[in-house]
Amino acid sequence: MSGSPLLEQLIDALRILPGVGPKSAQRMAYHLLARERAGGERLGAMLTKAMRDIGNCKQCRDFSESELCAICAGAARDSTLLCVVESPADRLAIETATGYRGLYFVLHGRLSPLDGIGPQDLGLDLLQTRLHENAPSELIIATNPTIEGEATAHYLAAMAREQGITPTRLAHGVPLGGELEYIDRGTLFHAFGTRAAIQE
Amino acid sequence: MSGSPLLEQLIDALRILPGVGPKSAQRMAYHLLARERAGGERLGAMLTKAMRDIGNCKQCRDFSESELCAICAGAARDSTLLCVVESPADRLAIETATGYRGLYFVLHGRLSPLDGIGPQDLGLDLLQTRLHENAPSELIIATNPTIEGEATAHYLAAMAREQGITPTRLAHGVPLGGELEYIDRGTLFHAFGTRAAIQE
Repeated sequence: MSGSPLLEQLIDALRILPGVGPKSAQRMAYHLLARERAGGERLGAMLTKAMRDIGNCKQCRDFSESELCAICAGAARDSTLLCVVESPADRLAIETATGYRGLYFVLHGRLSPLDGIGPQDLGLDLLQTRLHENAPSELIIATNPTIEGEATAHYLAAMAREQGITPTRLAHGVPLGGELEYIDRGTLFHAFGTRAAIQE
Repeated sequence: MSGSPLLEQLIDALRILPGVGPKSAQRMAYHLLARERAGGERLGAMLTKAMRDIGNCKQCRDFSESELCAICAGAARDSTLLCVVESPADRLAIETATGYRGLYFVLHGRLSPLDGIGPQDLGLDLLQTRLHENAPSELIIATNPTIEGEATAHYLAAMAREQGITPTRLAHGVPLGGELEYIDRGTLFHAFGTRAAIQE
């Protein structure tokens, strides 16, 4: 179709990116070739390097190109708090939105027996060892409020209690800026039941 | 912010792609690292190779990694027809939608004195030589129907006539599936004025 087989291959390779179809891939390739050669070369080099060098932090399992990620290696973090999240993106969201200064543990998934994802796939043996040898005082469970996320939270809470560690869960309720009329019934039921006294 | 400086750099590099903001770049990087390492590596290699090796066909100026692009090098094309387009994407659109079997010339832009884009920036010296030495019988001018595209078409038509070549222009009119009520007045005026007899 195109006059250049190499260009065809580039367009094809770009489609590996999420949300990029044939038309956007073509637009991206033409844009880089016409106007952003240097940026395209830099992206190529970064991709090659990142795919090869980025592994997982041996302590928290987050993506990292060194043995310990910057957060685990940092001396300034509070090691008595450990927050468990499903994905690196969730970790980043908490880090960006909250003032949390404790440590993290990244599952890279959630318990899902139907998909064959069990405790060993989420590194829970590593978490178990950590809770035993270097116990935090609180295990903050920040899995997603989905059925599988809740089941995972339940499992994690049991693990924490076994070691005498307090498990906690992010509060559920009405989101800021939300309107009661449009909140789903489950959330409203939960928010009503866990209403709190107004601080003076 | 992230636990990995290399990951930060990758997210930053991805933003060179058109239509990719910080959030999509992050999603792309995490997706590749978690699920598409091989595809990511392949994309990295293709980008590096394409940015370095893809130049312009010396005959038609389309993107090509060889001296002549596949279309110019192909023996099956009709060299008495030459179609001038603004961009490689326009060339691809014509090649895909029509049965055109002639040759192309890619301007990589349009005449735009205000932006300092003159005939030499569009390779019109190369086109001049071609019209002189290897004259087609028809020069199909397929620039966009914008003010600058029309001015470019006007300039190209004069070049063709000087060499005794017939210049032609893509037909303007009501697009298939369009509704007269919603067509802009200029197009309707033009379509009405250039109405054609219905073939029996």
